[in-house]
Amino acid sequence: MRSSAMRDLMEITARPEVISLAGGLPDTSTFPPQSFARQMTRIAQESAAEALQYGPTEGFDATKDCIHQVMAAEGMSPDLGDIIVTTGGQQAIDLVTKTLVDPGDIVIAEAPTYPGAVPVFCSYEAETVQVEMDSEGMRVDLLSELLDRLAADGRRPKLIYSVPSFQNPAGVTLSLERRRRLVEIARERELLVVEDSPYGLLRYEGDPLPTLYELDGGDYVVYLGTFSKILSPGLRLGWLCAPPPVLEKVVLGKQASDLCTSTLAQYFVAEFFAEGRWLEYVESLREIYRARRDAMLESLERHFPPEATWSRPEGGLFLWATLPPFIDTTDLLARALRENVAFVPGAAAYVDGKTGRHSMRLNFSGSNEDEIREGIRRIGDVVSEQVGLYESITREIPAIDAKETGAGGDVLPLRPRRGAGE
Amino acid sequence: MRSSAMRDLMEITARPEVISLAGGLPDTSTFPPQSFARQMTRIAQESAAEALQYGPTEGFDATKDCIHQVMAAEGMSPDLGDIIVTTGGQQAIDLVTKTLVDPGDIVIAEAPTYPGAVPVFCSYEAETVQVEMDSEGMRVDLLSELLDRLAADGRRPKLIYSVPSFQNPAGVTLSLERRRRLVEIARERELLVVEDSPYGLLRYEGDPLPTLYELDGGDYVVYLGTFSKILSPGLRLGWLCAPPPVLEKVVLGKQASDLCTSTLAQYFVAEFFAEGRWLEYVESLREIYRARRDAMLESLERHFPPEATWSRPEGGLFLWATLPPFIDTTDLLARALRENVAFVPGAAAYVDGKTGRHSMRLNFSGSNEDEIREGIRRIGDVVSEQVGLYESITREIPAIDAKETGAGGDVLPLRPRRGAGE
Repeated sequence: MRSSAMRDLMEITARPEVISLAGGLPDTSTFPPQSFARQMTRIAQESAAEALQYGPTEGFDATKDCIHQVMAAEGMSPDLGDIIVTTGGQQAIDLVTKTLVDPGDIVIAEAPTYPGAVPVFCSYEAETVQVEMDSEGMRVDLLSELLDRLAADGRRPKLIYSVPSFQNPAGVTLSLERRRRLVEIARERELLVVEDSPYGLLRYEGDPLPTLYELDGGDYVVYLGTFSKILSPGLRLGWLCAPPPVLEKVVLGKQASDLCTSTLAQYFVAEFFAEGRWLEYVESLREIYRARRDAMLESLERHFPPEATWSRPEGGLFLWATLPPFIDTTDLLARALRENVAFVPGAAAYVDGKTGRHSMRLNFSGSNEDEIREGIRRIGDVVSEQVGLYESITREIPAIDAKETGAGGDVLPLRPRRGAGE
Repeated sequence: MRSSAMRDLMEITARPEVISLAGGLPDTSTFPPQSFARQMTRIAQESAAEALQYGPTEGFDATKDCIHQVMAAEGMSPDLGDIIVTTGGQQAIDLVTKTLVDPGDIVIAEAPTYPGAVPVFCSYEAETVQVEMDSEGMRVDLLSELLDRLAADGRRPKLIYSVPSFQNPAGVTLSLERRRRLVEIARERELLVVEDSPYGLLRYEGDPLPTLYELDGGDYVVYLGTFSKILSPGLRLGWLCAPPPVLEKVVLGKQASDLCTSTLAQYFVAEFFAEGRWLEYVESLREIYRARRDAMLESLERHFPPEATWSRPEGGLFLWATLPPFIDTTDLLARALRENVAFVPGAAAYVDGKTGRHSMRLNFSGSNEDEIREGIRRIGDVVSEQVGLYESITREIPAIDAKETGAGGDVLPLRPRRGAGE
């Protein structure tokens, strides 16, 4: 699904009667309005003129202090001088691509990858090559082989884009061993890894893993973060940490793109962090999202046919479900929308627009538990209808086999790990 | 001056002891803090969750209603569906260039042009051709000749970028006759004109002129506006009006760049406009800036040598001064900074980085009248020092002659129009 179709989808799902499991919306309804009003009143009284003025292209030090706190909570301690504040995490992806990628350059991404990264890579005319994942994230062994093949042709990628934790859209997490190996590969081959980590603090079970940035020390890993999922996406506040030679170019790109990030939003975050309770707020989000994830997993078991598989994310906002290979999720979406429920068809997560067409991304952060149950029930119904139709035509259902599910890259269909501990 | 140097300049000028006539900062100190606090409290009480959430890529209708009011105050009445809300006016320039320009395409701009547009055109590898201006703005006759020459080579520009009113940096305004002619040219040759109009409502004398967008009816003119100069740049809120086929592509570009513009900022503007006093606020800014412009013009007469020339803007934030041809303003800036005063060297307004090197852009919106007088006195002193040095070496000062001022494009040195009515 190309991005104009994605945009139409987002418009349709804004209708109140539609249960949208399509977007990546965090729940902002639990943010305390009194805290909001208090912070803004303080800004109005103490620094209205400054909050309404231009700010430095790199962002304010007060904002970078907040970013440092978030990164420290994940085990990192970057120099403030290595950070630039961006207009959301999306701009961080855009800027790093703009900075590093020339037309025809190779970008490596996971298969599937963040659907919002696909149009960015396309807009800079990158040749995007996707590397399969399994339940432990990117197949780093396949990455090595790919790099060898490229090297044999005298080519090297400009960057390797990865969402190692609670990946969007697959919901899987790169294992510690593979994290170590990925960083080694980057160092050995002197390649840049762009670690996109919007959900790092949103872990609902299991032990935290070190980030690639921490393992690498910030030499070959560019780290992207955002306040969108732990505070508010409406602020449009993200960031990028990079070694100085990369950062300097990113700052020039940022200046051309939008001069600087909203001062008002930066002041808001600084005031919110000054209250000292931001981690409590993240903890409250974790509890909400954990319950929603569980509701979605239970509903999938109840309403999806036995041939379907899905990931069981330890954190983040998404899981990835794969249906029998005779179901095309782009077609299925049209039927689902008639039942007032939406998801993102899997093809959006592949640059070829073809792979992933039996899969879907399901979001569990933006709807409450009842809506999730009802939404999955409705999707389950349209899937069952399709299965029934197929049965009545063929009188047999082919066994699911990853090798049959399409043109490469579809290692994710995962077997449902029902009741598995991880 | 390339943009990294520009960035260093912005950093230096942020020091409190420096009088900066370099930036393009509006005065945000007069925005009433009570109004700020009132709006934010209302947002917190009535719609905190929505204000912190993602919004549509095109922007909210409530924001577009405010934009419509601003454009109506300048005589325009666009369809709301033709508008996209952007992350400041800078992003509007970036998006329209990203959408329309491929590497090697020709972009036409004024000479000098907005220094912030130069890195945008460069970043998309446009071949930028600049057309001379005089006191009535872009020499549309020269534009016609240029288009003929290009057509003879089988080439046509992808866009013509113009700041017709109170141009940044030249401070001149495109005359009504030339506006009509420019729109005719666009229609006859089916070319897109990008009208960048950040200061349209900031007129301090003379009668308003119709915008290119109004004259054209929105077929061949893409209009860029911003709240930065009439309300606050710290919100990062601008917009772009374009015919549907262009707008559709811009929306896709926007989605890849930063998904959507800050919801919080959009809600803030909607609340501010709902109070119904936004035009009063603009009128108060007009009075402040008119007095500052007058203070700058008086100080230039007093402190700049008789060989210098400058524009006499009817509105906006900037004027353009040109010094004797033996003074390089990039070198002069280093000396000026030692005296704690800053300006933008003219070379920043030319893509070749060479033309304009005897000129400077001076901002009169971001400093009060006393600071402006003191700032111009200090610049006048370093200029006099250079003039004295040159005299002592050559024993004669060459008469200023536009033909001597450098490699083309320097029709602006204007004769100082001291006491002239316009």
